[in-house]
Amino acid sequence: MIGIFDSGFGGLTVMKEYLRKYPEFDYVYLGDQANAPYGPHSKERVEALTLKNIDFLVKKDCELIIVACNTASAEALRAAQQKYKGKPTILGVLVPAVEEALKQTRFGNIGVIGTSGVIKSKAYERELAKYGVLYVPSDKRSRKEIKACPLLVPLIEEGLVDHPATRMILKNYLRPLKHANIDTLILGCTHYPLLQKEIARIMGKNCQLISSAKAAADAIESYFEAHPDLLKKLSKKGKRQYLTTDCPERFAEIGGKFLGERIKVEKVEI
Amino acid sequence: MIGIFDSGFGGLTVMKEYLRKYPEFDYVYLGDQANAPYGPHSKERVEALTLKNIDFLVKKDCELIIVACNTASAEALRAAQQKYKGKPTILGVLVPAVEEALKQTRFGNIGVIGTSGVIKSKAYERELAKYGVLYVPSDKRSRKEIKACPLLVPLIEEGLVDHPATRMILKNYLRPLKHANIDTLILGCTHYPLLQKEIARIMGKNCQLISSAKAAADAIESYFEAHPDLLKKLSKKGKRQYLTTDCPERFAEIGGKFLGERIKVEKVEI
Repeated sequence: MIGIFDSGFGGLTVMKEYLRKYPEFDYVYLGDQANAPYGPHSKERVEALTLKNIDFLVKKDCELIIVACNTASAEALRAAQQKYKGKPTILGVLVPAVEEALKQTRFGNIGVIGTSGVIKSKAYERELAKYGVLYVPSDKRSRKEIKACPLLVPLIEEGLVDHPATRMILKNYLRPLKHANIDTLILGCTHYPLLQKEIARIMGKNCQLISSAKAAADAIESYFEAHPDLLKKLSKKGKRQYLTTDCPERFAEIGGKFLGERIKVEKVEI
Repeated sequence: MIGIFDSGFGGLTVMKEYLRKYPEFDYVYLGDQANAPYGPHSKERVEALTLKNIDFLVKKDCELIIVACNTASAEALRAAQQKYKGKPTILGVLVPAVEEALKQTRFGNIGVIGTSGVIKSKAYERELAKYGVLYVPSDKRSRKEIKACPLLVPLIEEGLVDHPATRMILKNYLRPLKHANIDTLILGCTHYPLLQKEIARIMGKNCQLISSAKAAADAIESYFEAHPDLLKKLSKKGKRQYLTTDCPERFAEIGGKFLGERIKVEKVEI
């Protein structure tokens, strides 16, 4: 079984990509709604919460766990990987997004938008610096503009995706990135694919968007190629289970919008 | 000592009113930032969190505890009062706001804005219905328009109080209340006094605003008159302590804006 963990609904954009690519696998999705959003929490708090939720998925016998939340990936993935040492495999969404951005960028001008937690953690900055050397070694002028956009998640969850106020706030957030002439923008939050059209319109056709959700699902393909044993172990009965730590009604309503289908949600105590 | 509890920063608007009226008392402010915002949580979750935080303040020997959060007042005050049976005294912000609105209203057309949790709880609706009979018995046409405004707290915490996007979202939220010709609007969230000017501009001069923060501080005056024993018991050395369950730096920064002064913040585990 594949476990997909997120602080709330955002990880459903990752789940959606997985379901499109691998509909045959069994999935359990866990949204820690009781403690969402993770964005404004401290690193210690995000780490403690993430480990507790991963423990739960490990007990459910997941052979592969995707931390489908940029904040948790940035602040707690390493701790989780160190705790479980590959049993089960635990992957995040941050490295795939950076790798994809570095493949796609033409001039090495990469921007990132994310929640306060993601940006504060500097995880994208560190990853970009690390991989940057491998992928764009000759480009010394390469800029990495990073911007925290804490209002986008609440605006999306309020259903204001097409609202002029959202457009105005987006323009505000994106202005420095546009001025910096970035050619590639990482959507460093799994909620943001829902704003992809509007972000693309503002950034213009010279800037490519990298969805961390799509990048994470794409990256798993080569991961499976390198780890055929993992691929074999995963159960394939097409089961889906949606779990939340708070208010299943709200989860079903908003989550349904993310997935584009009606879902049945159970509440769990963690 | 007076304990003031809130899910985050909002209760500082209540604390500010208290400090203005009663600077001599000792105060401990507790913001449960690790679990904020309470607005989107279920009733069970809000109740469990509120009781845990109140237990902490009781152990700190508070003789008076103010639940300075509309969501916690709406969903958990009764449970807290039943648990402690007057020892210590535990008061909320909801009833004072309703009483003040019923005193001020000219035609009995009262509106309320609040977070999703407050509105879902129907606590204001119940209180207005209950007191409505006492205060405006002859007005059968009395309307109580209730509206959830989940984006206002994130917009305020982002510092976008004067931003055109905030104005646009506010106008959207307030339109039905304006159409309903309400003459009195309860700001049913302790964050909202920071938007008071803009809300007043949109609602026009025929609509009075009732701040639940100010109403709570005003109501305590008559409470002290009726309970002189409580007034005597409260320690008066002018001490202030600010505690948070997460990230004291962020609390000090945003909290300072709410109070209009620099504050020292400690982190506590609850």
